[in-house]
Amino acid sequence: MSRSEIKVYRHLMGENDLWAEHTRELLLKRRLLMLNLIGSPGAGKTALLEAMVGRLAGKFRFAVLEGDVETTYDAERLVRIGIQASQLLTSGGCHLQARMVHQALLDLPLDALEVVVVENVGNLVCPAEFDLGEMGKVAVLSVTEGEDKPAKYPMLFREAKAVVLTKIDLIPYLPFKMERCMEFIRQVNGQVPVFPLSALKGEGVAPWIEWVAAQREGLGKGSA
Amino acid sequence: MSRSEIKVYRHLMGENDLWAEHTRELLLKRRLLMLNLIGSPGAGKTALLEAMVGRLAGKFRFAVLEGDVETTYDAERLVRIGIQASQLLTSGGCHLQARMVHQALLDLPLDALEVVVVENVGNLVCPAEFDLGEMGKVAVLSVTEGEDKPAKYPMLFREAKAVVLTKIDLIPYLPFKMERCMEFIRQVNGQVPVFPLSALKGEGVAPWIEWVAAQREGLGKGSA
Repeated sequence: MSRSEIKVYRHLMGENDLWAEHTRELLLKRRLLMLNLIGSPGAGKTALLEAMVGRLAGKFRFAVLEGDVETTYDAERLVRIGIQASQLLTSGGCHLQARMVHQALLDLPLDALEVVVVENVGNLVCPAEFDLGEMGKVAVLSVTEGEDKPAKYPMLFREAKAVVLTKIDLIPYLPFKMERCMEFIRQVNGQVPVFPLSALKGEGVAPWIEWVAAQREGLGKGSA
Repeated sequence: MSRSEIKVYRHLMGENDLWAEHTRELLLKRRLLMLNLIGSPGAGKTALLEAMVGRLAGKFRFAVLEGDVETTYDAERLVRIGIQASQLLTSGGCHLQARMVHQALLDLPLDALEVVVVENVGNLVCPAEFDLGEMGKVAVLSVTEGEDKPAKYPMLFREAKAVVLTKIDLIPYLPFKMERCMEFIRQVNGQVPVFPLSALKGEGVAPWIEWVAAQREGLGKGSA
């Protein structure tokens, strides 16, 4: 057998990765940005999405794929204020899988959108391990959780394309030190942009929206 | 084949359940109470344990098996203030398993203890599914996470023998309604005792300690 006939086997993708790949192709073809928000239960992921409405200034139109173990509460919160949202229920599962996200995506009015935000199940561990075909994972961390979470749950923070630090209006009442938290983030991810904000008060939401808009603008222009 | 010869197969326990059973036998033989604290990252599980020191009033002696994905920060926090603690690292795993807990338990000075508290990995989903041989799971929920978490993560709250509601000192600064949270808890678990407390200020810690002491006292006396 000559060298040119050597059989080469590459990494075989599992089912989740295959669906994620389908999704990525679909998104790129349509120049749709998809972000995957990951954070603890109660970190303020839904509140962040609520806070974006009314501050978008026409920069982009977005829909939400809302992941939860049970209940449709979060999708209801979003629909109530005019956000296009679907509820993805895992029925006990600890993370969203790419296939369900792909199906839900196909049911969205994609022509009327520039951005899709997936809000994953509240969990700092498992969702970080599953590719949904998104252009970036976004770590959502509340200041009430303490400064050390990036070091204690490093996988998510290492992979994150951005960190949103929520509930900064509570800092005066907490033993929370911003510099210490930044040090913990930098330990696992030296470059990631960090957006400290208060969804409740509105402070800091605009720079986050700018960043999302810039990611959408950059799509298909070399660096995503 | 006569009826008396019919072969009967029962549920075969998986490896985790077998280790949990070993642990349960060991604990009962020694009249040791073991609790399994489960809550989100940053819910205040470690702070709760810190707050118990100095308020025990000789009611019981306890040690902690501290579960984390990475780092020994939490065990260090406890050892620093004189609590016997071991660190159990899952190295990426989203929950503690019974075998590691059993091994760590055997290395504790069991003769000098009445209570062992397992602090599980910060996660409201996966740890609820794994029996560690504990006498009870305790759900730790922070008021900063919002009222609806018991409905959104029902398995833990359904199984919990107690709910500890942490960080109540922050309620004045939050859109959190205590009655609404109690309604959500009651929806999934009608009877469970709830302990609202502030580990930082000390408020409400004493009734929680009383409950733990009563659970230890009740061991081996019919109802555990």
